[in-house]
Amino acid sequence: MSSSFHPTPRTLMGPGPSDVHPRVLGAMAKATIGHLDPEFIALMEDIKDLLRYSFRTENKLTLPLSAPGSAAMEASFANLVEAGDKVIVCINGVFGMRMAENVRRMNGELITVENEWGTQVDPEKVEAALKANPDAKVLAFVHAETSTGVRSDAKTLCALAQEYGCLSIVDSVTGLAGIELEVDAWNADVTYSGTQKCLSAPPGISLITFSDKAAAQVKARNTPVQSWFLDLSLLMAYWEGDGARTYHHTAPVNAMYGLHEALLMVQEEGLENSWNRHRAMHEVLVENLNSIGLEFVVDASYRLPQLNLVKIPEGVDEAAVRKRLLSEFNLEIGAGLGAFAGKVWRIGLMGYSARQENIQLCTSALKHCMR
Amino acid sequence: MSSSFHPTPRTLMGPGPSDVHPRVLGAMAKATIGHLDPEFIALMEDIKDLLRYSFRTENKLTLPLSAPGSAAMEASFANLVEAGDKVIVCINGVFGMRMAENVRRMNGELITVENEWGTQVDPEKVEAALKANPDAKVLAFVHAETSTGVRSDAKTLCALAQEYGCLSIVDSVTGLAGIELEVDAWNADVTYSGTQKCLSAPPGISLITFSDKAAAQVKARNTPVQSWFLDLSLLMAYWEGDGARTYHHTAPVNAMYGLHEALLMVQEEGLENSWNRHRAMHEVLVENLNSIGLEFVVDASYRLPQLNLVKIPEGVDEAAVRKRLLSEFNLEIGAGLGAFAGKVWRIGLMGYSARQENIQLCTSALKHCMR
Repeated sequence: MSSSFHPTPRTLMGPGPSDVHPRVLGAMAKATIGHLDPEFIALMEDIKDLLRYSFRTENKLTLPLSAPGSAAMEASFANLVEAGDKVIVCINGVFGMRMAENVRRMNGELITVENEWGTQVDPEKVEAALKANPDAKVLAFVHAETSTGVRSDAKTLCALAQEYGCLSIVDSVTGLAGIELEVDAWNADVTYSGTQKCLSAPPGISLITFSDKAAAQVKARNTPVQSWFLDLSLLMAYWEGDGARTYHHTAPVNAMYGLHEALLMVQEEGLENSWNRHRAMHEVLVENLNSIGLEFVVDASYRLPQLNLVKIPEGVDEAAVRKRLLSEFNLEIGAGLGAFAGKVWRIGLMGYSARQENIQLCTSALKHCMR
Repeated sequence: MSSSFHPTPRTLMGPGPSDVHPRVLGAMAKATIGHLDPEFIALMEDIKDLLRYSFRTENKLTLPLSAPGSAAMEASFANLVEAGDKVIVCINGVFGMRMAENVRRMNGELITVENEWGTQVDPEKVEAALKANPDAKVLAFVHAETSTGVRSDAKTLCALAQEYGCLSIVDSVTGLAGIELEVDAWNADVTYSGTQKCLSAPPGISLITFSDKAAAQVKARNTPVQSWFLDLSLLMAYWEGDGARTYHHTAPVNAMYGLHEALLMVQEEGLENSWNRHRAMHEVLVENLNSIGLEFVVDASYRLPQLNLVKIPEGVDEAAVRKRLLSEFNLEIGAGLGAFAGKVWRIGLMGYSARQENIQLCTSALKHCMR
């Protein structure tokens, strides 16, 4: 016979999920109401407004999706790309590779721009690809690569897309609320993010915003979106409209409570203050980890403050250290992914996790477990 | 400036979500841990076992999906169907229509078996379609049609599929834990359900189980599944395996806490007791609603006890009644959908909503608001 589950409280300093604030956990436990209840419809409107605040956009088509960030990535490509469309995907880590896989599965014509793991997407390479492919429809890249801790220059890349007549798809799952992200000022066409990184809401849903140009493109498709569940023209009928909302699927009501509270906390803090806090905490982390002899992988000029790749010192069994951190200190940090597997730790300072006390714990616990 | 959301507690007697038990709400609020935490991996194993108990199956490939029931429907077709495959879809309501739409978007060859709304899928018509299409690969139908309140004879339909060499896809979103469902005894190949109906967990995730035959079919595909997010061969790497789990997407950790507690409560009650409770409460509802002059739409022999279609009496403004029920009594019942829009109410008695006190409230409040 099974019994109720009582998770051991952890300090979450991996690549996500991050620590969830008690206010957000409390919101998740509020009584479930119907997905067509007028109170829930009002909540949906408020969530859309709060998302526009966090994304820095006036985009009408701004909404949460009822599935995690990977589904938002898929929704971006599924709605913009039709079979045979040419798509340029920039790859400098796991999530660029995943974008490429999405294009393949949609029978798009894939052009890749490859960059070394741990470095930025190179705008010169991108411009060369755009010049060589004047018929490309979409340029896709990762703003904040969760696998490498690298920030790419989204502003410049979006400008290139626009200059060469492409729609841009911007993955900012780990970026939103952690580093500068200016959807409107940068003319980003489709931008998506997750809940479980710098917003510090539980994982499970995702956030997406379409420029008017991108939304028009979805409406002008020749063929239906291959995914019924992720078809934005159907989702709009539920998330928009002044009158009755058309049922599409049953929204994850309690997850929306949590998202709303998390977005509200970003607004209360102020978006720029949130960016600044992530940078300030990053600086404290650098000082602390350097003091115990640890080195950072990514160049400081394009490092994500919220996700830090740290080299495993020689002779250290990295998996054993992570195991001890978890069992002795209830502290989770992340392993390396892909090309960095076994070579780095990923130490997250995202959202509510980006606090002095977490940095102190992480530093002293790492020191203890590496001895 | 927005502020925290405080939903008015409601009594949920529509087509779902149903009332969520305080134990399940409490579970949702427990501290988020990592999706690769050993404690979470253990929880995943327990959830799979509890799902097997509720589905009455030994199917190895039994797991929750990180998206609502509509995504489970899409996952069923996306994994089994390749372009050009012939698929027979039985339609007797909204969700059969949605199945057909899924097949179209996968470029399957669609054969439909149409049945009048409010009646069962007719096994004779299905057998005729199977005879006429010996090359059909899949037979899909809805066990418990949420739009009409009809139970179809899943046992007979699964047997027909097997007799004619088809794989069966069974939609039991509203069926699981509310009426008899015997995945193994009936030889159902793919069966899926939702959390927000008779399990009374919050909406947002779904449940799916594949027979060995269906799982082998997924492995033997000639083309990749068109959805990366719903590709079961990738999901298996995270949900199965004795050693390390491979990251696919970040699981909705807190939603899994809620699901686990809800499944545990089904096990504590006993699955057959849960079926019996739904039937017994249905009988009380029939007696009560008949006593105030309301009539049921669906023939008693194939009516879903957990979802009751009631005719709108002549001269009654159905939307106004629902609005009053909600504003004066905090009671939600459902409107008609599709062919039944404006003609019926849908009164749910699902999971934790299937209680005497709810029936008494519903009866007296309806009587009051219809005056």
